[in-house]
Amino acid sequence: MAPLMNNRDIIKDIIGEALLKVRGDNIVKEHLKVEKNTLYIDKYRFPISENIHLLAIGKAACSMAKGAEDMLKGYLRDGIVVTKYGFSLPLQKCKVIEAGHPIPDQNGLEASKAVYNFAKSIPPEDTLLVLISGGGSALLPAPDNITLKDKMLVTELLLKSGATIQEINSVRKHLSFLKGGKLAQIAHPATVITIILSDVIGNEISSIASGPTVTDPSSFEDAISTLKRYNLWEVVPNSVKEHLLRGKRGLIPETPKPGDKSFQKDLIKIVADNRYFCREILKSAQRHGIENGIHLTSFVEGEAKEVAKVIAAIIKEELLSNTRKTEMIVIGGETTVTVKGNGKGGRAQELALSLAISMDRWKGFTAVSLASDGNDGITEAAGAIVNEKTLKLAKEKDLNPLSYLSNNDSFSFFNKIDSLVITGPTHTNVNDVIVILIDKEYQPTP
Amino acid sequence: MAPLMNNRDIIKDIIGEALLKVRGDNIVKEHLKVEKNTLYIDKYRFPISENIHLLAIGKAACSMAKGAEDMLKGYLRDGIVVTKYGFSLPLQKCKVIEAGHPIPDQNGLEASKAVYNFAKSIPPEDTLLVLISGGGSALLPAPDNITLKDKMLVTELLLKSGATIQEINSVRKHLSFLKGGKLAQIAHPATVITIILSDVIGNEISSIASGPTVTDPSSFEDAISTLKRYNLWEVVPNSVKEHLLRGKRGLIPETPKPGDKSFQKDLIKIVADNRYFCREILKSAQRHGIENGIHLTSFVEGEAKEVAKVIAAIIKEELLSNTRKTEMIVIGGETTVTVKGNGKGGRAQELALSLAISMDRWKGFTAVSLASDGNDGITEAAGAIVNEKTLKLAKEKDLNPLSYLSNNDSFSFFNKIDSLVITGPTHTNVNDVIVILIDKEYQPTP
Repeated sequence: MAPLMNNRDIIKDIIGEALLKVRGDNIVKEHLKVEKNTLYIDKYRFPISENIHLLAIGKAACSMAKGAEDMLKGYLRDGIVVTKYGFSLPLQKCKVIEAGHPIPDQNGLEASKAVYNFAKSIPPEDTLLVLISGGGSALLPAPDNITLKDKMLVTELLLKSGATIQEINSVRKHLSFLKGGKLAQIAHPATVITIILSDVIGNEISSIASGPTVTDPSSFEDAISTLKRYNLWEVVPNSVKEHLLRGKRGLIPETPKPGDKSFQKDLIKIVADNRYFCREILKSAQRHGIENGIHLTSFVEGEAKEVAKVIAAIIKEELLSNTRKTEMIVIGGETTVTVKGNGKGGRAQELALSLAISMDRWKGFTAVSLASDGNDGITEAAGAIVNEKTLKLAKEKDLNPLSYLSNNDSFSFFNKIDSLVITGPTHTNVNDVIVILIDKEYQPTP
Repeated sequence: MAPLMNNRDIIKDIIGEALLKVRGDNIVKEHLKVEKNTLYIDKYRFPISENIHLLAIGKAACSMAKGAEDMLKGYLRDGIVVTKYGFSLPLQKCKVIEAGHPIPDQNGLEASKAVYNFAKSIPPEDTLLVLISGGGSALLPAPDNITLKDKMLVTELLLKSGATIQEINSVRKHLSFLKGGKLAQIAHPATVITIILSDVIGNEISSIASGPTVTDPSSFEDAISTLKRYNLWEVVPNSVKEHLLRGKRGLIPETPKPGDKSFQKDLIKIVADNRYFCREILKSAQRHGIENGIHLTSFVEGEAKEVAKVIAAIIKEELLSNTRKTEMIVIGGETTVTVKGNGKGGRAQELALSLAISMDRWKGFTAVSLASDGNDGITEAAGAIVNEKTLKLAKEKDLNPLSYLSNNDSFSFFNKIDSLVITGPTHTNVNDVIVILIDKEYQPTP
């Protein structure tokens, strides 16, 4: 390790380097290439005409589009990019539309119509390159024959019902004119190539941005059964019931089904996800002389402050261990916060605060909890950093960590002790990480 | 592995063997020996007179006392054993008192007085052997000059206040006539040897059964400061304030302090804890041909259903891993359940149910979640077993796992699909474990 750096600086450096690797433009440049009327996505090759059209959707859309503009050079004709307010970057050939996230808005509705028309206009011999990153579902609301408000109500009811994500999606996809493969269907017979920066734990491609280019095994009938199964059929707006019943009677086209021949020459490729990011963090750590790192999981879910307790448990055992030599633990996923207070915070910062409390009186560790998109909850921070000094600093400033935690006020807490991690938009979106540096020279007192 | 056993049987066998190793009588027999007027506790030796007196407190008290009766033979004069209703075993020289747990009761109050008189009666040249296991605090309520009701109220207020466990104990110990080292103080100058089966995560000895034989760094003044710091001074009963103020004025003796010379010849030794149990599980697994097991932590705390999600995340990564060869993961600690429903369950079973839900559609794992004392929550089960069939069995019987979880009805759920683990009293108490057997032959479909 660099002799003049402390662990706080080192861990931030390590993560910063890995964030660069998964930044939209860099990740697209690494996997995409065009040469002599051939488009290369890793090992896959596609003969193409001279005309590629671009559609980029999500929080990392501008950056991914920028990478594509660089690589596609003269082949790129035009494009539409839909991203979150404040996430724009200057582009050369693509039109950028900013829209609401996580709450869809009127701009999103208009973006969806623009995307529909754009896909419809692509000549059969051309190629549509779709770049998807997290946030796409909310940025492109495409309610079919119903109002946005009604569609949002149905989604909310389903999320509370205990229905599985597959069941929820069976309904959502049958209320949309873009989701569940419909976007690709519109663009066909043009070839549709989709490159994904995944923010969905487990990488189910039909869930990422609701799978606008992915065939859909579910039917109108499944959507209706789901609503009935969870006793929502009598609760949802009439417009929703009417639309689904018309679909069931064959009056509205079904979503494209697996095996649909028009999808056969398409490609869908996840180029980076949380696991990729975690591995980049470990590689970056190695460049800093930290050899013994482990990637524990990329599947973490659950209430942030409770997840933190399990992570603390793992750190404690590691600190007490005489036999293992782990210097770094990397954990990925995405937690949730059940908001009960009125403070300012985000899931990554709340996890960090709970971790600090659980690690009371323990030494020899430095942890960063971070939202990879640079935007943790409703704050301007990406996350926070925690070590053995965290609670001491709080005590010096007379802050009660438990009060801040119960008020969901993690941002204010870390702001007051100068322990926020602020990155600005990172132009990537591969969920969250918790990175823990273990000081193996630390000797626990039994 | 035995060819005719399935993973369910194997994992139960493995845990069963490890439970036998940490059973009160076996663990005492392994660490305690007497020979020619010398008492041996592992590497420690004590010259003794011919008279040893025994005090055993906790859920494993009878079993530990039984082990001691076997080992001490003619040296054992008499003894008192205080345990939970239903946890008695026949003993030869010790009187057994059953009392209330987790809610203290009148029998407990009387047991405390009997213990006080017993300790006071021990001749100076004799030895008092104290065997402590979890549950001791509630089984031996010893309110000093206040009512049991008032003492329980103070404890309840402190637990809700956000005070640390050290702060809470500073108050509890100064309201008790046995805790915070007072029991040993009463028995001195007789030598006091304490053997502990720990159920406190992190093994802080002054917290286990509230440390009746451990010196106490806190003072009456600390107790008063704590109540004031958390704005409870004006809330607690007058009897409590009066007692603490009289103590501060020197009218009631302080708890014995670290460095107290009368404690110098005493010994306090933890002979088994959750970590010990986890290692025994791994050793037992090896005897079943499972070589690559890891003990991830013994420090797990948090809301059971959320903890389960993190454990699921770790299992999923392990199932997807091509490089690692872990066959078993052992995780220890003790979770909590915030009860919102009116079902029947316990923390270990609730964790198992949440784990089953999180592992939906995953294959190749078998997990047991278990309370080591055989008594999970208010149920007659010790825990439950979960594998890829769990949700299928539930579906066949038309059970909605999420409904059972939100109604805290894990016992009914697992009972209906015949997946409870029932052991009866195990006569040990070393917190909970989650043991996961990973089927390395399982090939995940990406």
